[in-house]
Amino acid sequence: MTGSDETTPASTGEHGMYFLEKVTPAESIQHRMERVLASGRTRFQDYFIFDTRYFGKTLVLDKDVQSTEKDEFVYHETLVHPAMLTHPDPKDVLIVGGGEGATLREVLRHPGVRSALMIDIDDQLVEMARELLPEWHQGAFDDPRSEILCEDARGWLETHERKFDVVILDLTDPVGEDNPARMLFTREFYGLVRDHLNPGGVMGMQAGMVLLTHHRAHPIVNRIPGFFLNFGFLLASDEHDLSRADPAETARRIEQRGLTLRHLDAEYLHSRFALSKDLKDALAAETMVSSDAAPFWLGEDGAAHQRASREAAEG
Amino acid sequence: MTGSDETTPASTGEHGMYFLEKVTPAESIQHRMERVLASGRTRFQDYFIFDTRYFGKTLVLDKDVQSTEKDEFVYHETLVHPAMLTHPDPKDVLIVGGGEGATLREVLRHPGVRSALMIDIDDQLVEMARELLPEWHQGAFDDPRSEILCEDARGWLETHERKFDVVILDLTDPVGEDNPARMLFTREFYGLVRDHLNPGGVMGMQAGMVLLTHHRAHPIVNRIPGFFLNFGFLLASDEHDLSRADPAETARRIEQRGLTLRHLDAEYLHSRFALSKDLKDALAAETMVSSDAAPFWLGEDGAAHQRASREAAEG
Amino acid sequence: MTGSDETTPASTGEHGMYFLEKVTPAESIQHRMERVLASGRTRFQDYFIFDTRYFGKTLVLDKDVQSTEKDEFVYHETLVHPAMLTHPDPKDVLIVGGGEGATLREVLRHPGVRSALMIDIDDQLVEMARELLPEWHQGAFDDPRSEILCEDARGWLETHERKFDVVILDLTDPVGEDNPARMLFTREFYGLVRDHLNPGGVMGMQAGMVLLTHHRAHPIVNRIPGFFLNFGFLLASDEHDLSRADPAETARRIEQRGLTLRHLDAEYLHSRFALSKDLKDALAAETMVSSDAAPFWLGEDGAAHQRASREAAEG
Amino acid sequence: MTGSDETTPASTGEHGMYFLEKVTPAESIQHRMERVLASGRTRFQDYFIFDTRYFGKTLVLDKDVQSTEKDEFVYHETLVHPAMLTHPDPKDVLIVGGGEGATLREVLRHPGVRSALMIDIDDQLVEMARELLPEWHQGAFDDPRSEILCEDARGWLETHERKFDVVILDLTDPVGEDNPARMLFTREFYGLVRDHLNPGGVMGMQAGMVLLTHHRAHPIVNRIPGFFLNFGFLLASDEHDLSRADPAETARRIEQRGLTLRHLDAEYLHSRFALSKDLKDALAAETMVSSDAAPFWLGEDGAAHQRASREAAEG
Repeated sequence: MTGSDETTPASTGEHGMYFLEKVTPAESIQHRMERVLASGRTRFQDYFIFDTRYFGKTLVLDKDVQSTEKDEFVYHETLVHPAMLTHPDPKDVLIVGGGEGATLREVLRHPGVRSALMIDIDDQLVEMARELLPEWHQGAFDDPRSEILCEDARGWLETHERKFDVVILDLTDPVGEDNPARMLFTREFYGLVRDHLNPGGVMGMQAGMVLLTHHRAHPIVNRIPGFFLNFGFLLASDEHDLSRADPAETARRIEQRGLTLRHLDAEYLHSRFALSKDLKDALAAETMVSSDAAPFWLGEDGAAHQRASREAAEG
Repeated sequence: MTGSDETTPASTGEHGMYFLEKVTPAESIQHRMERVLASGRTRFQDYFIFDTRYFGKTLVLDKDVQSTEKDEFVYHETLVHPAMLTHPDPKDVLIVGGGEGATLREVLRHPGVRSALMIDIDDQLVEMARELLPEWHQGAFDDPRSEILCEDARGWLETHERKFDVVILDLTDPVGEDNPARMLFTREFYGLVRDHLNPGGVMGMQAGMVLLTHHRAHPIVNRIPGFFLNFGFLLASDEHDLSRADPAETARRIEQRGLTLRHLDAEYLHSRFALSKDLKDALAAETMVSSDAAPFWLGEDGAAHQRASREAAEG
Repeated sequence: MTGSDETTPASTGEHGMYFLEKVTPAESIQHRMERVLASGRTRFQDYFIFDTRYFGKTLVLDKDVQSTEKDEFVYHETLVHPAMLTHPDPKDVLIVGGGEGATLREVLRHPGVRSALMIDIDDQLVEMARELLPEWHQGAFDDPRSEILCEDARGWLETHERKFDVVILDLTDPVGEDNPARMLFTREFYGLVRDHLNPGGVMGMQAGMVLLTHHRAHPIVNRIPGFFLNFGFLLASDEHDLSRADPAETARRIEQRGLTLRHLDAEYLHSRFALSKDLKDALAAETMVSSDAAPFWLGEDGAAHQRASREAAEG
Repeated sequence: MTGSDETTPASTGEHGMYFLEKVTPAESIQHRMERVLASGRTRFQDYFIFDTRYFGKTLVLDKDVQSTEKDEFVYHETLVHPAMLTHPDPKDVLIVGGGEGATLREVLRHPGVRSALMIDIDDQLVEMARELLPEWHQGAFDDPRSEILCEDARGWLETHERKFDVVILDLTDPVGEDNPARMLFTREFYGLVRDHLNPGGVMGMQAGMVLLTHHRAHPIVNRIPGFFLNFGFLLASDEHDLSRADPAETARRIEQRGLTLRHLDAEYLHSRFALSKDLKDALAAETMVSSDAAPFWLGEDGAAHQRASREAAEG
């Protein structure tokens, strides 16, 4: 190409390129794109990588903005460190998903880690992240402790015995009844994960959509209070309960491991376990359980759906 | 009109009416409008009231969505109750702004309140809220304890001696250098508010934009982590510090006053005082002080601006 | 309402209200609305009436902009006068559709007209036009020569013997397989119209969509050359052929009838019969005939569809 | 890149990439982009090349869609052939602008042409067209009769004596007071062009914006009747007047030169000289003359502006 790579900076409403993100069937966000770095479809998902004025590089998978150069640290610190800090000495870590490499990057910052296995089904995405998203992985793929597998994580778990101190699930939302990711959100899958945890092991996951299943009465309202989106995260362990742990111990671990975090500190991390009353009420009222026979999925409006599969119904 | 008042429900992208909300110069949100109830301009501001599929009635003043029928409780509970609960026995309350009446409604739920004075400069807005926004005020304007004045609150404070136990500032953002609301965000104005507090009095305010002034380095990033918006709220008192109070005492007061809240409980309320590390870092680095001589205002991108006024510069 | 009825004039991209018109599944137009005068649904169609900065009042029925205050004269002159001028002395005129009253207005400008019967199925639309669209009808509904019926025009034609010198079909596009208007675009319906013409009678119609049926190979391209839309109009008569008539005679009739037209003159009118080569080629290749048994309809992309009805197929 | 180059086809309103074209300050068009082939800025203009579902590749320069793969033939046939057919035997042709090569392609289809000189100031655009827009140029750049210069056409004309039988001006609109293209729309520039015509020479140009200058009373209305855009084209010659020529002679020339046109035939071409009454009225009322001392330019709303330059005013 002969042109310089700059378009005139301008406001929304001016001529130019935009990415439209659909938030609900009735609300959408327009992001002005300064430049499109890549767009297309891997075998598993649509992808868009583009530059924006305020957020820098932006990664979209399927229909959702996954993270941006300027604020991915908020998401990835919150996904990784609660689980890693809950465990007194995490040595072997499994990441399911996380193809852009930033989750791996945060895991590797814990100096006691000796192996980090990342399994993402989408080899094309991983290759693209390696080339186009250095701000995310920051070389994590080449760390000698890293091992990258591109295959179905559920299949791998079903056929391997290896165990881990921490498992991080970094998955996209199971939107749509045909979404294959649905099978990574069932009771049986969580059982598989537990079977691969060492004693005292901890699982952490982004779970905006899981909390959401508990909001069937008015899912959108709670998903987007005041039109604004919020994530949810989940921790699970047979042994440890960070929400009842002493923040002073968390602070001590952060210091001991030499973590210089940008978004989290011990006090703030522990405060995140407090949920609003309306959210607690909705969780208490929720009865849906996602299983292999009847996995849940999300509709376009964020509502959770579940239907017994034919085999189950006929079984 | 002869038509029934229904348009076909449909998704964004389908033909129909939309409200475009500008979030930054490079990001905007499209809200599908099922029906427009009112639009126009009072002497002070643009207004739009419309119906949406998921959020019900939506109120826009100038360029920002203020609140919606379905989730205004999150905003108004968070604005009002921390200040009211910080005070052991609030009897006389002043609300500056709050024209739609929901702040007044929440104040009046505290049974010890004997007078609630609301001063909003925009009589046309108050009249419209009375007629079109019953879901917000729920009759609060007609409560015998309510007194509504439509005039400049700063002028009123400068010429009256009356004192209050709690003052709630419920103001729109001072966007634009010419915004008259700028004079309600200066050191001198806060001094005026203090002068009208009884001993032990408490001030509460929505302060998303005030926190924002402390983020000049990267205001948008912190205002909208991950493209998502968050509010900030401020409490001030010479005597009480809710952030260091015992949550059990807060819980006791909630019960004692018979408050049935939807969003807040004591534990969650107290957890809100924890700020993320990046926000605390930004606050610590902030040096801007807004004064009558050099009031700050917000640019379209959310950045704080300040310029010494001519008189001040020449004085 | 207490507010003045003005919002701040501003550009697209600024906060405010927009109407989104869908042109193809991949192209849409955003119209900034200064004010919404009415929106809703009659028994038959969605409607939107709003003010715009450059085009004044705008009328939308179902999903299409029908006409605007500033340029409706282009459409209505072109729909009405070719047929009226083709006939040497039109006395009795039938209008099918045309609820907003501008077609009637143009018909009545021919001084020889003694009766103008307008049949529009949508009484709510007619009532709304009478109240909110005076710029369109300009009092035509109250002309003593006017007669307005609100019922199904096909049913009326099937049960009445009355004959006319000119019939104008002013219908919305039959978009969608379920569109009842489909039955006003079949061979049988045109036969009905012919049966109601006096000897030498003339039919005129807006036929963008009819021409379109002849463009199945690449309908969108021809519908929207260069992304721009164009209308088509059709004239039919057993006796007269305006396309072969002498423009001087047309000019004479315009003068004789005292018509002061804004868009048409004789020369320009006659030039409109010339069609581009690609359009003529497409018309020549077209074989679809719409019938009651297999009426055609338009898809969202403007392509013509036809399917034999079950009864027909089974008959 | 590792991904296949396909995104899921979907409707406007669905998540994905869009190009926003601004038509007036109050109306804009959203074009869904299936894939972005190039975007950036040359030394002279912004450019965007992207794929669309219905129109194929689309070229945008600065803020306007210039042409699309599927319908560029309509524009380029109409720009080139009227001038070429007006001349009985065009041998030497000059094209000013026309960087994408389609105008050159149409010129070269006249077998009598022995030289075609194209002068486009933007070498980066020409290079990009050569690589990315083969559907436009179809090899015309490599025709032995073609000569391509990338420099300022006005400067070239001022310093060269070479004469031509036909000159085609294929320029973008002079939008904005600073637009350098303004100096290619002045009386003096047209004088320069005339000086470079052989006796009997013909100039043809796209002149949507020139006609537009004659519509100051309500430019938008006439530019976009019914919200729809239309082009204008101009022919000028000291000797020939195609509008009064015999269509049969035009048809003879088309046949003689072996031109197989897709959009034009003689009858249709001649019918294009008829202008609507409102346009003729506006042209008759127009008094603005663009000169080097006071060149006109177009505002965002399509209105023509003119201001005497300082030197002129002071001269």
